[in-house]
Amino acid sequence: MSLTFTHETLPQRVIFAAGQTADRLPAEVARLGSRPMVITTRGEVLPGARHYRDVVMHVPVDVAERAREATAAEGADVLVSVGGGSATGLAKAIALTTGLPIVAVPTTYAGSEATNVWGMTDNGRKNTGADPRVLPRTVLYDAALTLGLPTELGVASGLNALAHCVDSMWAPRADPINQALAIEGARALSSGLPEIVRQPRNLQGHEQTLYGAHLAAVAFASAGSGLHHKICHVLGGMFNLPHAQTHAVVLPYVMELNSPGIPDRLTDALGPGGLARLRADVGAPRALRDHGFRETDIPAAVDAILPVVPDGNPVPVTADNLTELLRRAWAGEEPK
Amino acid sequence: MSLTFTHETLPQRVIFAAGQTADRLPAEVARLGSRPMVITTRGEVLPGARHYRDVVMHVPVDVAERAREATAAEGADVLVSVGGGSATGLAKAIALTTGLPIVAVPTTYAGSEATNVWGMTDNGRKNTGADPRVLPRTVLYDAALTLGLPTELGVASGLNALAHCVDSMWAPRADPINQALAIEGARALSSGLPEIVRQPRNLQGHEQTLYGAHLAAVAFASAGSGLHHKICHVLGGMFNLPHAQTHAVVLPYVMELNSPGIPDRLTDALGPGGLARLRADVGAPRALRDHGFRETDIPAAVDAILPVVPDGNPVPVTADNLTELLRRAWAGEEPK
Repeated sequence: MSLTFTHETLPQRVIFAAGQTADRLPAEVARLGSRPMVITTRGEVLPGARHYRDVVMHVPVDVAERAREATAAEGADVLVSVGGGSATGLAKAIALTTGLPIVAVPTTYAGSEATNVWGMTDNGRKNTGADPRVLPRTVLYDAALTLGLPTELGVASGLNALAHCVDSMWAPRADPINQALAIEGARALSSGLPEIVRQPRNLQGHEQTLYGAHLAAVAFASAGSGLHHKICHVLGGMFNLPHAQTHAVVLPYVMELNSPGIPDRLTDALGPGGLARLRADVGAPRALRDHGFRETDIPAAVDAILPVVPDGNPVPVTADNLTELLRRAWAGEEPK
Repeated sequence: MSLTFTHETLPQRVIFAAGQTADRLPAEVARLGSRPMVITTRGEVLPGARHYRDVVMHVPVDVAERAREATAAEGADVLVSVGGGSATGLAKAIALTTGLPIVAVPTTYAGSEATNVWGMTDNGRKNTGADPRVLPRTVLYDAALTLGLPTELGVASGLNALAHCVDSMWAPRADPINQALAIEGARALSSGLPEIVRQPRNLQGHEQTLYGAHLAAVAFASAGSGLHHKICHVLGGMFNLPHAQTHAVVLPYVMELNSPGIPDRLTDALGPGGLARLRADVGAPRALRDHGFRETDIPAAVDAILPVVPDGNPVPVTADNLTELLRRAWAGEEPK
């Protein structure tokens, strides 16, 4: 790794406190404002505060507009999101035009709370951007809130976070700092995810996974999309494959192709047996053929992926090796 | 390590670009302002800009006041510091009252450029504080500028940075995130410092050391002062021992005492042979008796250190084990 790079560290106050949302949230909100508006589909999170519940997946623009109007009508001066990517996303849409600070309380491993990226959909078309105003000022990670996540969904979401860590090794803005954070994230996810499966009601695995997912998002936001995410993005968009399963299946084959770019410290972080052991432990999906991808789709996928292969991938990506990668992922052949 | 913690990430744009100051600095300055004032004792750094050269060690308040007046008279809207801790410190003193953004170009491994801590002296008395305004917005690390640092000074300064990394394992605000950054810093310093000694004119060791020193400062600013720094601070203040040498001598004995608190990943980061090999490779100072500390000073030092031992040290610190630590450091006995 060359030591010529530019790294932007984004400001954020991050609190890990399992089971302490009720105790800690009021003070954290009070640091930033006095009239909070809580965006959530959960029950009452912050007693006495206005709770806004019109949360819709992918943040349609009209939903965002209504939420902005409600925020203005309420005279709110701080936003509190409690939920998954949709709740965080709606708070970000409001912050984008109002500049209001956000306290995010994530309940999944999606990681949006740790990035300055927003997204909204307009008639099904997704627009995204990066803006410092949408980066939550404070994030309260309470692993107790992820206990309700179905194990299978948690595992898929956690493997997606692990893919963020791995892809940070060779993404366009990869640098030693975001690599170090990604490796620490991979370490936490590799230890946390099997725990979630073994003891789904035990906080410890959830804490580790949530911590790993945070670092995964920080690293990914800093490093950008590497080969793995470009492949999954194309597969998801062209063939409507399910997001998390696609990530879980494709990751080991990208690691196989890019093995010269895998630092020893990442291998160490994945622990004995590496990704193969982890996938077995958590019962990860193994073949794209099980999720709607057909062998005859491979040529079109290769054509769509080749032009978006990121600069700086550690191995040159060709029609041949990409075809082989997709064929093996389609069939679910044992990754090396 | 408990997963209950609060971590504040400070915003900073960090550029590593050896030999590229002349090429990169103008654009970085222009991102933040149009009337730069350059604080440096070096030659002309930014052609056409005002260069302010009244830089004094430890930033006396009257020096700071004159620099603020010059900044106002110049109508400067961005500060550029090029130098060691004194230049960075003076820019921080100006930013503290004016709020002007700083572009820092450090030429030593002191690390002040990566923290929000300022310091000034008033009749020899040091005042310090933390303020977001003094954190440089951009840091340009150019290892070519550290080539001029005498090797012995570079090694002492680099070992001091390594002490920041190690002490981050058990400092009062230690958390897994600042530990991960500290471990990455220790890895870079352990590989860079012997290179500086072996090949002082070669950029590579300087690049690694500068990178490690950056992470050391980030981790230390986040984690706070651990046992090692409390001991060195007392020794320096009471017995006027030299800063860098004191750190270099004391560190292995603190690691010996606190060995139950040393994560395997830190041990791995220090490389084969660990700190002992590193100290031998760089010819580090070995005994406090060689630097003005007397055996008869030990009881007074113990009395002064015990009340400031940080909470959460992995091993209870007693008069007995602290006396033994200082005696061994005084004599330079082989650390375990």
